Amino acid sequence: MSDPTYRWVGSRPVRPDGVPKVTGTARYGADFRLPGMLWGRVLRSPHPHARIRSIDTSRALAHPGVKAVITGADFPDQPFQYMGPSRVESNFWHLTRNVMAREKVLYEGHAVAAVAATDLATAEAALALIDVDYDVLPHVIDVEAAMADDAPLLFDDMITRGVEPPPDKPSNVAKVAEFSMGDIARGFAEADVVVERHFTTQPVHQAYIEPQACLAHYQENGASELYFSSQGHFQLRAQTARLLGMNAGDIRAIPAEIGGGFGGKTTVYLEPLALLLSKRAGRPVKMTLSRSEVFRATGPTSGSAMRVKIGALRDGTLVAAEGEYKFQAGAFPQSPVENGCLCGFALYRIPNQYAKGYHVVSNRPKVVAYRAPGAPISNFAVESVLDELAASLGMDPASLRLKNAAEKGSPLLSGTALSHDGITQTLEAIASHPDYRTPLGPNQGRGMAAGYWHNAAGESGATVYINADGTVQVATGSPDIGGSRASMAIMAAEAFGIDYDDVRALVNDTASVPFTGVTGGSRVTYATGLAVLGACNKVIDELRARAAKLWDVEADAVAWQDGHAVPVSSNVGDFEPLSLKALAAKATVTGGPIGAAHALNASGHAPGFAAQFCDVEVDPDTGKVTILRFVTAQDAGRAIHPDYVEGQMQGAVAQGVGWALNEAYVYGEDGRLENPSFLDYRIPVATDLPAIETLIVEVPNPNHPFGVKGVAEVGLVPAMACVANAIAAATGKRLQALPMSPPAVLEALLGQ
Amino acid sequence: MSDPTYRWVGSRPVRPDGVPKVTGTARYGADFRLPGMLWGRVLRSPHPHARIRSIDTSRALAHPGVKAVITGADFPDQPFQYMGPSRVESNFWHLTRNVMAREKVLYEGHAVAAVAATDLATAEAALALIDVDYDVLPHVIDVEAAMADDAPLLFDDMITRGVEPPPDKPSNVAKVAEFSMGDIARGFAEADVVVERHFTTQPVHQAYIEPQACLAHYQENGASELYFSSQGHFQLRAQTARLLGMNAGDIRAIPAEIGGGFGGKTTVYLEPLALLLSKRAGRPVKMTLSRSEVFRATGPTSGSAMRVKIGALRDGTLVAAEGEYKFQAGAFPQSPVENGCLCGFALYRIPNQYAKGYHVVSNRPKVVAYRAPGAPISNFAVESVLDELAASLGMDPASLRLKNAAEKGSPLLSGTALSHDGITQTLEAIASHPDYRTPLGPNQGRGMAAGYWHNAAGESGATVYINADGTVQVATGSPDIGGSRASMAIMAAEAFGIDYDDVRALVNDTASVPFTGVTGGSRVTYATGLAVLGACNKVIDELRARAAKLWDVEADAVAWQDGHAVPVSSNVGDFEPLSLKALAAKATVTGGPIGAAHALNASGHAPGFAAQFCDVEVDPDTGKVTILRFVTAQDAGRAIHPDYVEGQMQGAVAQGVGWALNEAYVYGEDGRLENPSFLDYRIPVATDLPAIETLIVEVPNPNHPFGVKGVAEVGLVPAMACVANAIAAATGKRLQALPMSPPAVLEALLGQ
Repeated sequence: MSDPTYRWVGSRPVRPDGVPKVTGTARYGADFRLPGMLWGRVLRSPHPHARIRSIDTSRALAHPGVKAVITGADFPDQPFQYMGPSRVESNFWHLTRNVMAREKVLYEGHAVAAVAATDLATAEAALALIDVDYDVLPHVIDVEAAMADDAPLLFDDMITRGVEPPPDKPSNVAKVAEFSMGDIARGFAEADVVVERHFTTQPVHQAYIEPQACLAHYQENGASELYFSSQGHFQLRAQTARLLGMNAGDIRAIPAEIGGGFGGKTTVYLEPLALLLSKRAGRPVKMTLSRSEVFRATGPTSGSAMRVKIGALRDGTLVAAEGEYKFQAGAFPQSPVENGCLCGFALYRIPNQYAKGYHVVSNRPKVVAYRAPGAPISNFAVESVLDELAASLGMDPASLRLKNAAEKGSPLLSGTALSHDGITQTLEAIASHPDYRTPLGPNQGRGMAAGYWHNAAGESGATVYINADGTVQVATGSPDIGGSRASMAIMAAEAFGIDYDDVRALVNDTASVPFTGVTGGSRVTYATGLAVLGACNKVIDELRARAAKLWDVEADAVAWQDGHAVPVSSNVGDFEPLSLKALAAKATVTGGPIGAAHALNASGHAPGFAAQFCDVEVDPDTGKVTILRFVTAQDAGRAIHPDYVEGQMQGAVAQGVGWALNEAYVYGEDGRLENPSFLDYRIPVATDLPAIETLIVEVPNPNHPFGVKGVAEVGLVPAMACVANAIAAATGKRLQALPMSPPAVLEALLGQ
Repeated sequence: MSDPTYRWVGSRPVRPDGVPKVTGTARYGADFRLPGMLWGRVLRSPHPHARIRSIDTSRALAHPGVKAVITGADFPDQPFQYMGPSRVESNFWHLTRNVMAREKVLYEGHAVAAVAATDLATAEAALALIDVDYDVLPHVIDVEAAMADDAPLLFDDMITRGVEPPPDKPSNVAKVAEFSMGDIARGFAEADVVVERHFTTQPVHQAYIEPQACLAHYQENGASELYFSSQGHFQLRAQTARLLGMNAGDIRAIPAEIGGGFGGKTTVYLEPLALLLSKRAGRPVKMTLSRSEVFRATGPTSGSAMRVKIGALRDGTLVAAEGEYKFQAGAFPQSPVENGCLCGFALYRIPNQYAKGYHVVSNRPKVVAYRAPGAPISNFAVESVLDELAASLGMDPASLRLKNAAEKGSPLLSGTALSHDGITQTLEAIASHPDYRTPLGPNQGRGMAAGYWHNAAGESGATVYINADGTVQVATGSPDIGGSRASMAIMAAEAFGIDYDDVRALVNDTASVPFTGVTGGSRVTYATGLAVLGACNKVIDELRARAAKLWDVEADAVAWQDGHAVPVSSNVGDFEPLSLKALAAKATVTGGPIGAAHALNASGHAPGFAAQFCDVEVDPDTGKVTILRFVTAQDAGRAIHPDYVEGQMQGAVAQGVGWALNEAYVYGEDGRLENPSFLDYRIPVATDLPAIETLIVEVPNPNHPFGVKGVAEVGLVPAMACVANAIAAATGKRLQALPMSPPAVLEALLGQ
């Protein structure tokens, strides 16, 4: 992992945000306050589905201490679209209704009004004074029920898109997506063995530690401020501006530290409400969500119902694969089902493929991204079927996958080709692990699985400024969730050839760095890293020019080497190398301060590959599954700061174990969520997890100077199948529904 | 003033910071707070001069609620130098002793220790528990007394620099500076008329509305934060870092709004104390000065004793001028006496000149810059003498000055030549003003004077980022005292050819823009303006490249015109012009976010020229002077936002009237300041001032795209002489000492 080419890349220095975080001085979304600040609270629907006949806010407004009350009617409407051609543009009609209901409430917890008052207690009290007249409607929670002919409709006139000819009546299916490659019928006809199974998964929450929180200060002159925790303050600023009919430039969005996001903090909930309340009240407004509100009203990922069928030749060659994926979108389109369709089979060379995905609305919170959105869901089905297929063929499951592993250039269901190698190397890291073949005890089993995720690149910006003392300030627009400040500082130190400790890395606000997309899609180290390196290169060019000025030579006669300006050859003259510090000290007399901004829309990123195995023990009396060992391998391209690559890999597995074994939303008959707290919504705690062993595979990405590939998401993708395959190995029972909680496992054991 | 060439330059749009300032939401130095914040207070010397035998902080440290106590011993010492070769480098040995006394206290109010406690009352109480054992020494307050042979010495071994051979014994004269041109003896020999007079001026305070305030948060990992109000957060950060032995890069300095500075907020007082207390306490520390502390312990400008002698031919041609200027430096070197020497005669072509300046320490607060530092002091002497000379020659005082006005290329006492025209035009604006010749009533008089100030340029940085909605974010490192956000937005709007309302201008922190020197030297609109325009030009080049990409032509084939990318000629192709908004909306697909940082060490600025006349009425019974009319002319080169040029001109006159008529420090025999409040230190209030008429002269600076010259300081330079000359005209009495308060005027009237 450590490469002698590099001084800092691959090392593990202390992260810049470490001390503030462990000493408690780091500022999260709820840690900001302004003079004259009000507190905002949201009134939420008690019904999963109801028409709003009227809202009367007059009693609340008259309540002493209440400074503003808003409802959906106070927001400008957005162009109507149930399911638009582009994800971004189709979003706003739904998004404005998700942050504050208009015609109907579509899930329990749906915001219907909000209040700003001089203190929290007054704001709470005022909520009870808002009179909402509801016409309660029948509701539907689950995905297949929502697709039934007689299901209550969330949108009375929504006609499914993506089907030709269009259906003649509305339904809860917002869109159908189909992808095919080769000839699926001929493929299955060729197959010697075919396995086809049905699966279901439950929606699970991103379960970040920090609930959403923001502080908004509306100002007339385009100087409004928004302080909040998010995965992308530029994106949330743009959404807020759009929902309020403002220019993005009217708002300065200041990023807080973020206590976890995992995709769930890529969209607005409170920000537009707080800013509108602030506008109405003429004072800053602070809002925070309770954990119960987080569960009731912020997005989990989709639950699903799936059918997957895979066929192979006797020698293990996969010849055909098809999947049908019904994904819950929650109360508004859309779901990540296209990702599910496209990632499910992407690891393998399978000539004939077909996938069909459904976006289905029901009376649940609108789904939002969750780590490799969509991919873990279809993967659970695909990798479970492959496990059965391997057993049918009498093959080791890793060998089956290695035999069929795609390589650079292999065609993908998306119509493109796989852009990078690394699948085989990642699978081999697992297959060759010494513990992969150790014997197990009674009631124990070993499972393996592999996963694919597109990853993303996109728009990022960075600035690099040199202080007179030679310290270097690096800022980006990427909120740091997984240690990216450390990675940026490492890459800058490596580029300049200076000490890591001389680099200060920070996350800056929307007025202070070029536009930067969300921290998501495992894109930050790659794309924002390229922005930082781009800015470093501009600065290095300037440092060379300054040295040239001091030496009275052409800039081209100066090279940058090991942190110093040096003559390109001895012909240039006999000059002592000039360090960055020396050049920084002379900046004033050589032309002034040195710094650069750089931005790009990056491409050339690599998809993520993961492979894992785990050992479980199943208690035959209770059905409780204990994870004994979990080994996860990922192709990082190049691990800039291996600690944080390992952290991503371990965190992903921890979330996968929760999704696999315990996490689920429990709805009552009344359509109300019965477990909106961490006491009842069971995420893994330390005692649920073994030490998670990480194997960083490095197949460098040639499009990045250091070879970076994204690592943050794909580690979650195979984890549920991995656990399911281990349970199958331990018990001989194939569980096809998540979570594989003790009652479910016991039921399988008892053969019921 | 309005030029049809420009759409925005010369117009008067609403300033970006207007609404927050009038609605009270703008954040000044004292408006910041952080969780866990402590309050810091400073223990100050009751003695004007004493040796510190010992300081015992143990009782204070043991006091409940006290979290840290510091003294001078807690700061690293700085290289020893009484008066170094360069102003910046000589500063730190003194500066560290000024922020916290070490061996001696040198003025009443000198800081000797500081405390951080959980609340302000506890911090105050703890000050009384710090035991300082003083050996009280004789003190000296006034400049000529301090130069006396038997004066108490502030520094026992300080030998005057700049004298050859060096004196054989120490004194309070830190340095002597001499400048000469031509043959001064021959010049006076040629003169037909010679006037020689002595003058004194009092130290006056910058009297900003907002006392110094800061919030410091020390963090181990180089992420310390300093929030404060200043004229230059980069400079105060550098000073703080130096005094604490840190790297500047270890501190992020966040600029507050500033409630006035006038030069007085270009140096640290509280910042190093607060940051060191925060380091010791492990918590954020807030400190503010009271008004009494501002008067006792922050810098006024120098008081002085001066002798000026000028000789002219019978026709009014000035042939010789000499000045001897003794400037108080306060307790530590140095004073702005070089500026006094160099600016006094700079308006005029005088072939033979000589000036000698003395930096003199005494037991007063260390002086700091105040609007055109040094120039108003010598100007009071020079322009008073010229007034007498004009009377002796029977010439109109404006005609005398016009006859001798220097022009571009005229030699200066500094050894360089005058770099810009504009003196004649500025004098003519006064001489041709219709009211310059209107008759006056009894006890009334009219005076005129003119002034010169170097101005400055230097290092500035800016960033310009384009939002997807086409709004443009402009940030600089220059604290906005006089409306510079508006000026920057105007210049950017003009450069891009877009609406002023589409530009957002702000002052950014040390991590977010390239290094920028202080807001001082009337340099911001010029130098920081060039930084903004440099960044705009980089962005325009990028916008042209983006249009070229969309049109599939070379970037050189695209020009930028009236806010649009256009083909350079019809040969390029038939393309519709693309607006900045249109290009911003397509940024993602043409290469990503658009923005640039730019920095420079600017030169090519122009000196400031002012000419004024005023009418006064002197009450013969009380000596009270009433200003009836004040007309001030200045060469702005080009007024970017005329409101703020006029504001600078009016503010300068208001300060000049205060300096002329009333402001003075009243010391008791015990060396203690007796009037450290706005009740007793009398700055002008609205009823003391007439409407101040402004005449903006525009002789463009060819080194700036819009012709900008600095305007913030020179308006103060001639104001005291102008009032003195008017009093002389009204009364026939020449007052040679400031302030010309009612008792002083009455004394002159009574001929005592």
